Amino acid sequence: MNTFGQIFRLTSFGESHGRAIGGIIDGCPAGLKIDYDLIQTDLDRRKPGQSKITTQRKEADEVEFLSGIHEDITMGTPISFVVWNKDQRSKDYSDIKDIYRPSHADYTYQNKYGRRDYRGGGRSSARETIARVVAGAIAKQILRNQSIDIQAFVSQVEDIRLEKKYTELDLSNTESNIIRCPDEVTANKMIRRIEEVVQMGDTVGGVVSCVIKNVPSGLGEPVFNKLHADLGHAMLGINAVKGFEYGSGFAGTKLRGSQHNDIFLKNGDKITTKTNNSGGIQGGISNGEDIYFNVAFKPIATLMQKQKTVDIQGNEVEVNPKGHHDACVLPRAVPIVEAMAAIVMANHYLLNKISQI
Amino acid sequence: MNTFGQIFRLTSFGESHGRAIGGIIDGCPAGLKIDYDLIQTDLDRRKPGQSKITTQRKEADEVEFLSGIHEDITMGTPISFVVWNKDQRSKDYSDIKDIYRPSHADYTYQNKYGRRDYRGGGRSSARETIARVVAGAIAKQILRNQSIDIQAFVSQVEDIRLEKKYTELDLSNTESNIIRCPDEVTANKMIRRIEEVVQMGDTVGGVVSCVIKNVPSGLGEPVFNKLHADLGHAMLGINAVKGFEYGSGFAGTKLRGSQHNDIFLKNGDKITTKTNNSGGIQGGISNGEDIYFNVAFKPIATLMQKQKTVDIQGNEVEVNPKGHHDACVLPRAVPIVEAMAAIVMANHYLLNKISQI
Amino acid sequence: MNTFGQIFRLTSFGESHGRAIGGIIDGCPAGLKIDYDLIQTDLDRRKPGQSKITTQRKEADEVEFLSGIHEDITMGTPISFVVWNKDQRSKDYSDIKDIYRPSHADYTYQNKYGRRDYRGGGRSSARETIARVVAGAIAKQILRNQSIDIQAFVSQVEDIRLEKKYTELDLSNTESNIIRCPDEVTANKMIRRIEEVVQMGDTVGGVVSCVIKNVPSGLGEPVFNKLHADLGHAMLGINAVKGFEYGSGFAGTKLRGSQHNDIFLKNGDKITTKTNNSGGIQGGISNGEDIYFNVAFKPIATLMQKQKTVDIQGNEVEVNPKGHHDACVLPRAVPIVEAMAAIVMANHYLLNKISQI
Amino acid sequence: MNTFGQIFRLTSFGESHGRAIGGIIDGCPAGLKIDYDLIQTDLDRRKPGQSKITTQRKEADEVEFLSGIHEDITMGTPISFVVWNKDQRSKDYSDIKDIYRPSHADYTYQNKYGRRDYRGGGRSSARETIARVVAGAIAKQILRNQSIDIQAFVSQVEDIRLEKKYTELDLSNTESNIIRCPDEVTANKMIRRIEEVVQMGDTVGGVVSCVIKNVPSGLGEPVFNKLHADLGHAMLGINAVKGFEYGSGFAGTKLRGSQHNDIFLKNGDKITTKTNNSGGIQGGISNGEDIYFNVAFKPIATLMQKQKTVDIQGNEVEVNPKGHHDACVLPRAVPIVEAMAAIVMANHYLLNKISQI
Repeated sequence: MNTFGQIFRLTSFGESHGRAIGGIIDGCPAGLKIDYDLIQTDLDRRKPGQSKITTQRKEADEVEFLSGIHEDITMGTPISFVVWNKDQRSKDYSDIKDIYRPSHADYTYQNKYGRRDYRGGGRSSARETIARVVAGAIAKQILRNQSIDIQAFVSQVEDIRLEKKYTELDLSNTESNIIRCPDEVTANKMIRRIEEVVQMGDTVGGVVSCVIKNVPSGLGEPVFNKLHADLGHAMLGINAVKGFEYGSGFAGTKLRGSQHNDIFLKNGDKITTKTNNSGGIQGGISNGEDIYFNVAFKPIATLMQKQKTVDIQGNEVEVNPKGHHDACVLPRAVPIVEAMAAIVMANHYLLNKISQI
Repeated sequence: MNTFGQIFRLTSFGESHGRAIGGIIDGCPAGLKIDYDLIQTDLDRRKPGQSKITTQRKEADEVEFLSGIHEDITMGTPISFVVWNKDQRSKDYSDIKDIYRPSHADYTYQNKYGRRDYRGGGRSSARETIARVVAGAIAKQILRNQSIDIQAFVSQVEDIRLEKKYTELDLSNTESNIIRCPDEVTANKMIRRIEEVVQMGDTVGGVVSCVIKNVPSGLGEPVFNKLHADLGHAMLGINAVKGFEYGSGFAGTKLRGSQHNDIFLKNGDKITTKTNNSGGIQGGISNGEDIYFNVAFKPIATLMQKQKTVDIQGNEVEVNPKGHHDACVLPRAVPIVEAMAAIVMANHYLLNKISQI
Repeated sequence: MNTFGQIFRLTSFGESHGRAIGGIIDGCPAGLKIDYDLIQTDLDRRKPGQSKITTQRKEADEVEFLSGIHEDITMGTPISFVVWNKDQRSKDYSDIKDIYRPSHADYTYQNKYGRRDYRGGGRSSARETIARVVAGAIAKQILRNQSIDIQAFVSQVEDIRLEKKYTELDLSNTESNIIRCPDEVTANKMIRRIEEVVQMGDTVGGVVSCVIKNVPSGLGEPVFNKLHADLGHAMLGINAVKGFEYGSGFAGTKLRGSQHNDIFLKNGDKITTKTNNSGGIQGGISNGEDIYFNVAFKPIATLMQKQKTVDIQGNEVEVNPKGHHDACVLPRAVPIVEAMAAIVMANHYLLNKISQI
Repeated sequence: MNTFGQIFRLTSFGESHGRAIGGIIDGCPAGLKIDYDLIQTDLDRRKPGQSKITTQRKEADEVEFLSGIHEDITMGTPISFVVWNKDQRSKDYSDIKDIYRPSHADYTYQNKYGRRDYRGGGRSSARETIARVVAGAIAKQILRNQSIDIQAFVSQVEDIRLEKKYTELDLSNTESNIIRCPDEVTANKMIRRIEEVVQMGDTVGGVVSCVIKNVPSGLGEPVFNKLHADLGHAMLGINAVKGFEYGSGFAGTKLRGSQHNDIFLKNGDKITTKTNNSGGIQGGISNGEDIYFNVAFKPIATLMQKQKTVDIQGNEVEVNPKGHHDACVLPRAVPIVEAMAAIVMANHYLLNKISQI
């Protein structure tokens, strides 16, 4: 149950304080020239300590490929990779070993497995998403060959919301600020808010939006694996995600059918739609228009302040974390959202190659 | 790609105007006494023509089991079932055969498969959800043996919203009105709105909410198959769904961590949480609290009014549907949401039985 | 666990004395014109009562397609089909209900599931193979478009063995006799042997051989899903099969490497091999040479004579079957072997389409 | 397509001359205490250079676990492991880079993927089986908790065959000689034969037999995943395997039904069978008797003598390998056969836990 995808498949492994995080990508076609810079760039966008608003924990997060690539080209065989955990010194965990941290996975892992790796979150740590970013960066390269382009950005931090639609934004600005919001004014507000929250030892959530362009029509499977269902599945599997909507989303529930329907138009040789409430997907299959969706992230559960909780025996105790933690996960979630979107899209791109005789 | 689930698995088949809709349930354990009334009740809750606010198309939708059950008990072998399509007379479809209806799947199926079944939506018709309701009704029986209870209801129609939280409602009232909203005052407003919309030949969307009670802690797989990720996947695979959120959802993005965290408490012998922003799931695994989530449905695309569109050659044409169609899918979506939730929960209930040695 | 294949997938259902046998074929590409005659021909080759040496039970075994095909062309959606069981009158089974027939599945089903369908074998009946023959006949049509040709024949009945290699035989003679052995002299010996055995109320086993020609090089996945491993898996899943060997097989264990190796030759524009001990598969992947393999069938367990056994309480009892039963399953197994081979080959043909970028 | 199993699943990776061989075991229940000695013992039984009749190549083959185990106990999370390749110095491969070695996978990989890792076999090398041995050793530990015991041994080398049935042998003698044949006289003949063959620069094949004892009744899935079908699938996926038979196997095709049937007997409280031609499996499900099967291995393709072949352009060339190679793979195949059997049995043991409500 640690595998995602049907054709292009990632199996991930690793605990935050174990030896390594990594994975195996199976089903990547042979003949893909690997761009290692793109992979490292995405890992760097995900890594902690990259700016003043992310945790100051320093992790290099360099990926090492163990198989499947020869002379920089994929061989069609499984691509295995590891990112070593540097931070696995045998620290004293006796203070948290038996404590259930609020809104963490300590309690549920203990119940499910009868035990848990109490060192810094173990398997439930967001450090696991390293594997997704690596696989996503390879999926992006399959998609890039088809000109399919995926761009995510932060569109909301707490109640500070980017009011413009994505079509009014220049998404190439996303990387120009540390919050990864393509609108500078909004970005600055978001950054200030996070700085305030850090001071209070508190955390904030928000929304990451994502746009996928140049998708050919035909991607997606009609029933359970609708393209948006697989995208939603992928996003909801990311740590701290509480919701997913695509196209008109929750707001679309307030439109009449006559307002919501996307009228087909002839546009030169192509058929397009006048509006795009469908978010580029109709009947679960891409129609060639832009795909866009929003992903809701809750505020991080680890606070830099005391919280009440119970221990494994049910005794009331207090938890008070030390170390470096993010007050807002959003800027680091941007490459993770892109990575999971890329894995879904590459999988459906390959699946669609065999939908006709 | 027409199979859902890993252990308790539904493979569905059927086009709306083909011979039948049906499916195969594989992985249902042996020894389950089948309650046929529960199955038919759910089919009746889904069927068209059940009230003045649903389409007046009459379909009996009686299920016929072909295998897997002997002397009313499951045998551990695949449970196959069909619901025959009554409405498959060879009507004249020449008026819509070559037309791409706005916001339907006509255009995308044509692109994906090079052809499509133009008779009434074919595989993209919501009639396919019959298979899900049957499988869900069997999954519910597995869960009922464990006292796990799933109840969905309509919480929003267009901008009319049930303002109370589910904990303030008596969910046993849901079936007492035709819109399936447990609050009578709100229900009446919703019904009136739908009646107005029908008059205008238009359609409306809304939200179905769902609550799952008595879930033991431990259900869900930590990474890609988090319990809420599989629930979201299931919901987003239902026709017309545009969004999914669980627990605090999108609104939770506006809370601080100190407000959002669910503090653990000792409650007699049990450990519970003071609040339930987690929606009963932490780290992807159930924690024993109520699971609750919202599902956004767009307004139905088939309008009882003329719409512009193009045909297969790109010529501008008009589409003007005849026959009986729903103006609001919500009340009929309630049993479908429950069914998909039940399939996910039964699957994870079984999976969890083998998580410890 | 009733699904076979990764891309072209058959999920089968049905008990011998339930309502129907059938299945769902998922992953068949759109655009395949269906040849119904080929399907019925294969069902007729499998059906009982087709000659004096098969059981005289009469079953029409006509297939009814419920979905996935429109205007005789596959739509890319799941192809569901049923063959109704005629022989499901409520007979008196009290004599065998609690008895474990020797070398049948009664005892093991009872242990696995805590119950079993005692009516004529239930799910363990070879009647289930109807579903495979239907799916195989559709797979054959995918392969026929690529000129890939699959032919099975009976090569051994008890100790009567076809001594010629397949390359010395005219396989177009296979259907010219009722035992389906392409060599007439051997065929007659086999038929006489079966007639003798029928007289004695006993049964015999034997070997079905299969040859697959015109396979392009490149089919098969290198490690666990080697082409021959999937063929073996498919064959060993057929009722009464006890062994599988391909290419040089068990006899090849007695050759030296210098005798066994297939030397590569240039043959015009093509590369071929001088010998074909590899059976057309090297490293699990087809090399373009003929694929050939043998499948061992044990003698049927149902005898027309008294046998000792025990009942469910462990009491010693006698079993003495009535009705019509085959004394030799081999001629009817020929289309089943072909069908399973076709499903494997179609699956790998489709998989291989996405092995390169 | 590099994953084996449904519940207990191994995904393997690695090329012989890449960085490492390894894998991820997913679905191993939490709470299993790991016996590292057992794992290393099996790796040592597989490794080259262990005796005078195996290749003199020295490889330490020590496994390093990267995840899933904490304080020596499985956590329920994926167990990742690597065995580093020592022999990856950048040798000069120009002599074999473009040559298709006879009966190797060079030609078929090139056709499938458009390229191949020419360094020593790449992914097609039997070095990949290291991953299987590690996963199998963990599977054995799940089975050992249930007293299920798996023992393989060499029963044939070329035409030297162990004539005794396994029930007449003391399998605890298997490890007492370097060929791993439990009968000392036969073992010595086999060893002498291999020594002769080494002198001639040639290779030999043979048969590995395997016995599984103390299997509870109920393991196996009735149709496509019959217990013996999954065992056969597993065995046929091992390098150089050409055939599989279980129970009476190919020889059983020569028995009459009245001879072949296994009569049920009451044996104290238990029901047993008088004979065991069924090989412990009836209807695809274990019946509690011993499971036994044979696996045919062809002679190794790499000869210590010149062979003709062609290169990638079709030119006639000669191949003449250097280095150390096995003349007989059999003794090193014994732990691989056990490992794959263990993976299948652990998978079915876990699956069977959820076959009844």
